[in-house]
Amino acid sequence: MILELEVADVLEIFPDARKEGIVEAKRIRGISSLNRAVEGDLSFLGNPKYRSQVSGSEASIILLPEDYEGKPRKGQLFLRMKEPSLGLTKLCHTIEKNMTSDFPSGVHPTAFVEKSAKIDSETSIGPFCYIGQNVEIKAGTIIESHCHVGQDSFLGKNCRLYPGVKILSSCELMDRVVLNSGIIIGSEGFGFEQVESAHRKIPHLGKVIVENDVEIGANTCIDRARFEETRIGEGTKIDNLVQIGHNVQIGKGCLIVAQVGIAGSVQIEDFVVIGGQAGFSGHITVGKGAKIAGQAGITKDVEPGAFLKGNPAMPVQLAHRISILQRKLPELFNRFAQNAGNK
Amino acid sequence: MILELEVADVLEIFPDARKEGIVEAKRIRGISSLNRAVEGDLSFLGNPKYRSQVSGSEASIILLPEDYEGKPRKGQLFLRMKEPSLGLTKLCHTIEKNMTSDFPSGVHPTAFVEKSAKIDSETSIGPFCYIGQNVEIKAGTIIESHCHVGQDSFLGKNCRLYPGVKILSSCELMDRVVLNSGIIIGSEGFGFEQVESAHRKIPHLGKVIVENDVEIGANTCIDRARFEETRIGEGTKIDNLVQIGHNVQIGKGCLIVAQVGIAGSVQIEDFVVIGGQAGFSGHITVGKGAKIAGQAGITKDVEPGAFLKGNPAMPVQLAHRISILQRKLPELFNRFAQNAGNK
Amino acid sequence: MILELEVADVLEIFPDARKEGIVEAKRIRGISSLNRAVEGDLSFLGNPKYRSQVSGSEASIILLPEDYEGKPRKGQLFLRMKEPSLGLTKLCHTIEKNMTSDFPSGVHPTAFVEKSAKIDSETSIGPFCYIGQNVEIKAGTIIESHCHVGQDSFLGKNCRLYPGVKILSSCELMDRVVLNSGIIIGSEGFGFEQVESAHRKIPHLGKVIVENDVEIGANTCIDRARFEETRIGEGTKIDNLVQIGHNVQIGKGCLIVAQVGIAGSVQIEDFVVIGGQAGFSGHITVGKGAKIAGQAGITKDVEPGAFLKGNPAMPVQLAHRISILQRKLPELFNRFAQNAGNK
Repeated sequence: MILELEVADVLEIFPDARKEGIVEAKRIRGISSLNRAVEGDLSFLGNPKYRSQVSGSEASIILLPEDYEGKPRKGQLFLRMKEPSLGLTKLCHTIEKNMTSDFPSGVHPTAFVEKSAKIDSETSIGPFCYIGQNVEIKAGTIIESHCHVGQDSFLGKNCRLYPGVKILSSCELMDRVVLNSGIIIGSEGFGFEQVESAHRKIPHLGKVIVENDVEIGANTCIDRARFEETRIGEGTKIDNLVQIGHNVQIGKGCLIVAQVGIAGSVQIEDFVVIGGQAGFSGHITVGKGAKIAGQAGITKDVEPGAFLKGNPAMPVQLAHRISILQRKLPELFNRFAQNAGNK
Repeated sequence: MILELEVADVLEIFPDARKEGIVEAKRIRGISSLNRAVEGDLSFLGNPKYRSQVSGSEASIILLPEDYEGKPRKGQLFLRMKEPSLGLTKLCHTIEKNMTSDFPSGVHPTAFVEKSAKIDSETSIGPFCYIGQNVEIKAGTIIESHCHVGQDSFLGKNCRLYPGVKILSSCELMDRVVLNSGIIIGSEGFGFEQVESAHRKIPHLGKVIVENDVEIGANTCIDRARFEETRIGEGTKIDNLVQIGHNVQIGKGCLIVAQVGIAGSVQIEDFVVIGGQAGFSGHITVGKGAKIAGQAGITKDVEPGAFLKGNPAMPVQLAHRISILQRKLPELFNRFAQNAGNK
Repeated sequence: MILELEVADVLEIFPDARKEGIVEAKRIRGISSLNRAVEGDLSFLGNPKYRSQVSGSEASIILLPEDYEGKPRKGQLFLRMKEPSLGLTKLCHTIEKNMTSDFPSGVHPTAFVEKSAKIDSETSIGPFCYIGQNVEIKAGTIIESHCHVGQDSFLGKNCRLYPGVKILSSCELMDRVVLNSGIIIGSEGFGFEQVESAHRKIPHLGKVIVENDVEIGANTCIDRARFEETRIGEGTKIDNLVQIGHNVQIGKGCLIVAQVGIAGSVQIEDFVVIGGQAGFSGHITVGKGAKIAGQAGITKDVEPGAFLKGNPAMPVQLAHRISILQRKLPELFNRFAQNAGNK
């Protein structure tokens, strides 16, 4: 990343930081990890795992936790603060504002908006977007190229749709929802009934509601409900390539990592954290604050606060214990054979 | 879901239902699950798991199995029938017909159709669609926004392509095929040959054939064959984010749940059911009517009718037995250590 | 596959092949597998598994390894060569050149290119493409319909973007990169920080660099780095629906099969091979030439050359041993109970 930032601007962002050393450079040209930084870069110690890299780093400015003991090299400035990670985020938000190209308000000449759509004048509708009948879009929302917003859908304030998002009919985004490229909101649920040995589709007449401050990753799919709504709760963050089935209810503040699959009618309560590639059978409830390890297979209700792993899933400590013992199975079988022989 | 349906219309749909109770409302305003229904809603007992919720439900009309013993509350109507689920589907199809916006026949002014394409006058080609050279599309097919149909491809009657489907060159859909948003039909197969330590691509010159009544979920990918065809058999239903490799042959009436991965040249025979996130190695055959549990890893041929689970996969009953015994490993190791000590 | 190829043309491609038999047909109408070939087809023995099918094959020409002992039937020509698979690939490349429709140089009338973009005159920009500000695209690159190339991105020579690829801002493709349909390059990384019990997004200001000769499958997602770059090394091949997190560094010549998930900041060294649906925790290193079995869960650094399987992952031979012993657990528990009873 190449940027031009005055050292003075950086210092202004951290008025409470404890300074040590004198930076020689006048400008910061980039942000970089400790071991890759060169003169003119700003770096940071976020994860303690990388503590040993600080002393060798050539960064001109380093954000550090308050208890870091080392000294800056010549020409290097240490900024000690409570939480360097948050500090960095603060810095990045400042930079981001300067970097992001403006999305001018208005409808791109190549976009197509149905007459009955109500679009606030302070929205940006990008190239080749299609906005359907009776759609309503509130102020501050940015829709990039090749998006589709189906009829009767509603988008709140300050949402951001990256290129190629498809929101099908009758779905709702509340405020500040971020949808990465290729997301499908409102696809048909996977429900069929056996009629004379053929699978006959169950119509899905419901919708998807995505609450405030939800952010969703690229190419993730969320199916519409059968009658009511599939719902993603406030502040929940979902990664790329996740599958969320029809009628699923996800609570507030959950974190769902890439390639997770959640079957129909599952209830995920608030603040649940789900590792990548975990899978959930239909019609189960995952209690508040539960943690599910990556690749776990969850087929039954999960207690609030539980931490499960494996398939079939079990408490993480039992899973670790068993995986250690499994590695001893060859030895156990040998000794058992010996003992049996000794008798 | 908000709808306006006369009670009389509902009764007309179920002429053979056994009625008990008198509904007070004149109109049905929605369909809802038993525990969420309010006055004016229609509900149903499909899954016996929810039987206990019937007596507390405030729905105005409830579809029930014939053997349900309870009585309706005041102002509530019970409709008893052989299969309430099928009844509900019937009702939904009626509603769906009324709800779905018409897709007018013809080509949207923003779409681009190559001159050599033969498109029936009773098709609907949506905004920003691209239809390639020599494409043929039959009557009744609806193509929504941002779809691509590559040269020499063929689409049969009454197909439905949701927004953003990409059908690459020389592929074939037969009749009544439903493709959800973001599906890719005909991507390059993943085949490479080692030439002097580099991977050189094997050209994929074949195609994909999707037979009658197949329905496929959002963002699923189906690779084209090397020479001949990757084939999805009649009436098979595939969920979201599924990967189907080059040359795969899938039989009739299969159900394939989300995020399944099927490597190249696999043969799946008729009526196979595959749980979510299961994976298949290349060049194997899965026999007719087999069932594969979610997250299973299948690396060898599967006998017809088998029900496999786990990775490595094994008969489901053995898998259950082993997973129970695994949880007893800590105890077994303890007791073994004790016994050994006792000697 | 239907094609028209003179037998003489085929022979010209294999000047060094050892010929046996006399083909009667004048033209080759298709390429087909041994057991499906009919008269007029060319077939081949690539995988020794299919050796027994040669004698029954009705193909008119068969490419065979030098040590194949059988004799051609009447009217059939055997061409023996060192590596029939490579021979076939050579043939296919010839056919492909004849088959592929020309992509005419220039910008399709429905595409939209920002004025500041620098596009070589020998590129093909397809229908409904959007090319952003300051984008640079070099000679020989083909971009099919519905692609988005975000501002400040760079595409090298002879790249191929299939329909619906989204390359977001500031990303770089070097030369001869192939991106299948629906790929997202440069989506936001999944990184959040806890601020007063809410998840606050960490801005991702970096980019994605895709080196020479990389080929990527449909609907795969590659997140941009936080500051620097997510990098896919030269000649690496990635299959469909793969997730590659922010800051991941992938070396040269790797093979990554469908639905693999690689979390943020993972380093994959050169020539690593990863089976389908395997998953990687963040911040780990996978050594040069390592092999990872399908569905494996990798949570720790992997030694160069290791071959791991399972979750938790272990050397493949230990994994096989344990999975055999697991199947004997029921017997072991029985015998143990018996022994304990005998005392």
